[in-house]
Amino acid sequence: MKLYTNPASRGQIVSWYLHELGVQAEEVILDFKAGEHKAPGYTDKFPFGLVPSIEDGDLRLFESGAILLYLAERFPEASGVTTTEQRALAAQWVLFANATLAPVMFIESVRDTTLPKVFSPLDKVLADREYLEGGKFSVADLAVGAYLTYMPMFLPQVDLSPWPNVVAYINRISERPSFKATSGSPEVTNMAKEMAEKRAAAAAAKE
Amino acid sequence: MKLYTNPASRGQIVSWYLHELGVQAEEVILDFKAGEHKAPGYTDKFPFGLVPSIEDGDLRLFESGAILLYLAERFPEASGVTTTEQRALAAQWVLFANATLAPVMFIESVRDTTLPKVFSPLDKVLADREYLEGGKFSVADLAVGAYLTYMPMFLPQVDLSPWPNVVAYINRISERPSFKATSGSPEVTNMAKEMAEKRAAAAAAKE
Repeated sequence: MKLYTNPASRGQIVSWYLHELGVQAEEVILDFKAGEHKAPGYTDKFPFGLVPSIEDGDLRLFESGAILLYLAERFPEASGVTTTEQRALAAQWVLFANATLAPVMFIESVRDTTLPKVFSPLDKVLADREYLEGGKFSVADLAVGAYLTYMPMFLPQVDLSPWPNVVAYINRISERPSFKATSGSPEVTNMAKEMAEKRAAAAAAKE
Repeated sequence: MKLYTNPASRGQIVSWYLHELGVQAEEVILDFKAGEHKAPGYTDKFPFGLVPSIEDGDLRLFESGAILLYLAERFPEASGVTTTEQRALAAQWVLFANATLAPVMFIESVRDTTLPKVFSPLDKVLADREYLEGGKFSVADLAVGAYLTYMPMFLPQVDLSPWPNVVAYINRISERPSFKATSGSPEVTNMAKEMAEKRAAAAAAKE
């Protein structure tokens, strides 16, 4: 299996899941500055130039969330996702992460008003369970947790104290060795710190 | 199977897919103005108060994209989605629709610059095929097409002429009887028209 990725992309989430599953993949780092992800060598295979993507035999797949769901189904013993119902719930949380949670975090113009509408119910959900489905860490936690761990990394200015169960969950997820080795690696953390500082400087310059 | 929905939600997309599959579900219309989707009767089952959702036996599922993927797997004969690879590609296009396509369409502040980056490659993809996967209409087209058909409905001011294959695809999808009976029904079309007029009036008032 080949993973096309870059540290500044959601490819880190896929690397993290591969690590959790104990699956080895050949990682091909695309040089974003050189535009490798928008050059014919890549877009001939992946027309939208989106990263990450994978090749597994004849299958070519983009969209990080779809790759997570594929990996869960491809390695059922390691993922614990074996039934139609479990796949449906995995898809629910992956879609929730990518289509509901990510927008409220990253669309700055609406963050203050929309983020509590998602974080408050999430805090209630996490009040009586450590993990989202089945009592143990699964692809659902990886997908949702990936975005939540972005909060302290990329949005350190947001006060999370109204949602203590979310904070505890972020800490729980962040302690996973597979997270530390991939999405939470010093490389990604430093990159996030630089981005946060640049944004703060830009905001200060505007005032 | 019970579908909780409202004409002003992506529940219309699920209704459309149920219609395509020839599956009957009991539709429960939640009264948004009365806040039924944020009241305990509903949030006890679906904590985020997101609509649409389904109940099928013991399974409770929210996120329209996850519901589409579940229905495709649950009714493989009608959906044509039967293998791990087909499910992966279905997930790819559903994630693409909800996490990549929808944001470039609906985040007004970045639409002008980001929409061409998605529509131009999509136009190329559609230059040599009528449907996204397998040569015939599938859940991939339904997920992507659902958002594309929102263009003429909700964003009539956007000039689509640079992307003739996308326009032809929208027309092809819009002609489906199942679309006309659900997502493209007069009820939804009128609602879209009202929304577009309101937005135009608000924009004019700002100037």
